[in-house]
Amino acid sequence: MARAAVLGAGSWGTAFAKVLAEAGTETTMWARRPEVAKALASEHRNPWYLPDVELPSMGATEDPAVALEGADIVVLAVPSQSLRANLAAWKDLIPAEATLLSLAKGIETGTLLRMSQVIAEVSGADANRIAVLSGPNLSHEIAAGQPAATVVACPDVARAEAVQHACATGYFRPYTNSDVIGCEIGGACKNVIALACGIASGMGLGDNSIATLITRGLAEIIRLGVAVGAEPVTFAGLAGVGDLVATCTSPLSRNRSFGHALGAGGSMETALEATHGQVVEGVKSCTSVRALAAAHGVEMPLTNAVHQVCHEGMSAAEAVGQLQGRRLKSE
Amino acid sequence: MARAAVLGAGSWGTAFAKVLAEAGTETTMWARRPEVAKALASEHRNPWYLPDVELPSMGATEDPAVALEGADIVVLAVPSQSLRANLAAWKDLIPAEATLLSLAKGIETGTLLRMSQVIAEVSGADANRIAVLSGPNLSHEIAAGQPAATVVACPDVARAEAVQHACATGYFRPYTNSDVIGCEIGGACKNVIALACGIASGMGLGDNSIATLITRGLAEIIRLGVAVGAEPVTFAGLAGVGDLVATCTSPLSRNRSFGHALGAGGSMETALEATHGQVVEGVKSCTSVRALAAAHGVEMPLTNAVHQVCHEGMSAAEAVGQLQGRRLKSE
Repeated sequence: MARAAVLGAGSWGTAFAKVLAEAGTETTMWARRPEVAKALASEHRNPWYLPDVELPSMGATEDPAVALEGADIVVLAVPSQSLRANLAAWKDLIPAEATLLSLAKGIETGTLLRMSQVIAEVSGADANRIAVLSGPNLSHEIAAGQPAATVVACPDVARAEAVQHACATGYFRPYTNSDVIGCEIGGACKNVIALACGIASGMGLGDNSIATLITRGLAEIIRLGVAVGAEPVTFAGLAGVGDLVATCTSPLSRNRSFGHALGAGGSMETALEATHGQVVEGVKSCTSVRALAAAHGVEMPLTNAVHQVCHEGMSAAEAVGQLQGRRLKSE
Repeated sequence: MARAAVLGAGSWGTAFAKVLAEAGTETTMWARRPEVAKALASEHRNPWYLPDVELPSMGATEDPAVALEGADIVVLAVPSQSLRANLAAWKDLIPAEATLLSLAKGIETGTLLRMSQVIAEVSGADANRIAVLSGPNLSHEIAAGQPAATVVACPDVARAEAVQHACATGYFRPYTNSDVIGCEIGGACKNVIALACGIASGMGLGDNSIATLITRGLAEIIRLGVAVGAEPVTFAGLAGVGDLVATCTSPLSRNRSFGHALGAGGSMETALEATHGQVVEGVKSCTSVRALAAAHGVEMPLTNAVHQVCHEGMSAAEAVGQLQGRRLKSE
């Protein structure tokens, strides 16, 4: 039986720990706050993120050394921009042969590194030990046991398969893949396109427009991915189209909802009012994704338009007009 | 100025004729029923399919010879299973140099031919003269002038570009492509996957499940496409992902709605009761798509499951269980 440490007790970390435990993996969660660890251990519940979900029996602790002891799979489930600092504190506790599995999605601000690159840099682990998990995985639905699939990507096929078996259940179906870069680029870029879809829906546009944005968004994600070494076929899969479609069409997606408020109100000011000042991931990541694209000479018109609306004072209506006015092309 | 004949006055034929006319193309519609031709010509309206939409000025006739005279672009907008019979009646009226543009989506029952193959066989036209148009194009939204994009595919790039310019407007953005086979396979298969998504949603499954079905559906569509000579990259585009996402997520999609009734009721009998006996395209095309896949040795588990539910008496719940129970794989 495999042993997993899940580091981070947000909604996705918690839901994925539930999957691991239900797949028969001996699972221990680490939570930063002692009260969360306590609720997980004693009530089998995460009152902060998934209050209605009863969790299976698993360990929970606020001590990373306890969680990491003897772990075969170390699941990194902290926010992308804090992964570096967290991992620096944990690296000496991680078993030498463990697989490091990233659930974090994003491009690190400033360095423009993908999460697996941050992990390699901070932990010193060989690339063969670093895996990522990505797919259409809205955490509330996974926690509710609804059927979904995901991708486990790792250069080492045997490790990908070990993770696959450690998290396969009747409702959660993992597929292996070796393209870590493609899975990470898909995960990092999707929130920006979800914002664009939200903006369009807030402006009253319909399903053709959303499907067009998803598809043209996918095209620019593929261009960026190929420029940084991804396999194009990965983007037709669960970590590409799958995650993108779920994030762009679900009312549970916070990026889509924020975009909707933005499109309905017409500007960032009105959107921030509507969401009580809450800023979503896509608002931040459009900056790092745009910077990565610029560094590789890749054109990303949708990401650029989202950046103009979120950070350069352009109205949603102007952005749509600009996109529709581009010259006619081949696909 | 280009001259177009649009043969068929259903909702998509009518909406596309509106696009052509608004793009500055001299457009004449042919309608089978004289009363439809009369309403189009005198009221600039199609009371049967798009009653609320005011159409721009264009010709309308029930005489195919009048519509086809001097046409540069002949738009074939009749149902896929009646294209052969219609075209046989029209072929001697079609100008020798005209581009034949297919809006029909499907695989012909019995022959298992794509629509462009039916056109070539019946009209004797060279493949360079045959184009297809496909994308996320729900006709009611296009008719309302909402922004969308599409693909015009033709082996002859100059003809693809001529069609592109003939139908480009501020809200309708056509991209050219040379992969006729890919565009047709995408269009023919999407309704079956939309049925599967409807079934899942009718069973109460959420956005992860729908996104997973769309992605795994795309994977099996790509497998079939590659087997019959399509370019895989086409399926990441508007005629692949784009059309699939629009059809699978929109409440305007009749296949999705029928599937929903099926999933909610649990069997074909209850779905047919809920839809007053109306059968949708996906129910028929799952048979021809499955036969085409079998002829090429391609595995299409979702299409097969839809066929089992629609034609072999399997319950929706059994089909989902069977799909989730397949052995673990690489993506």
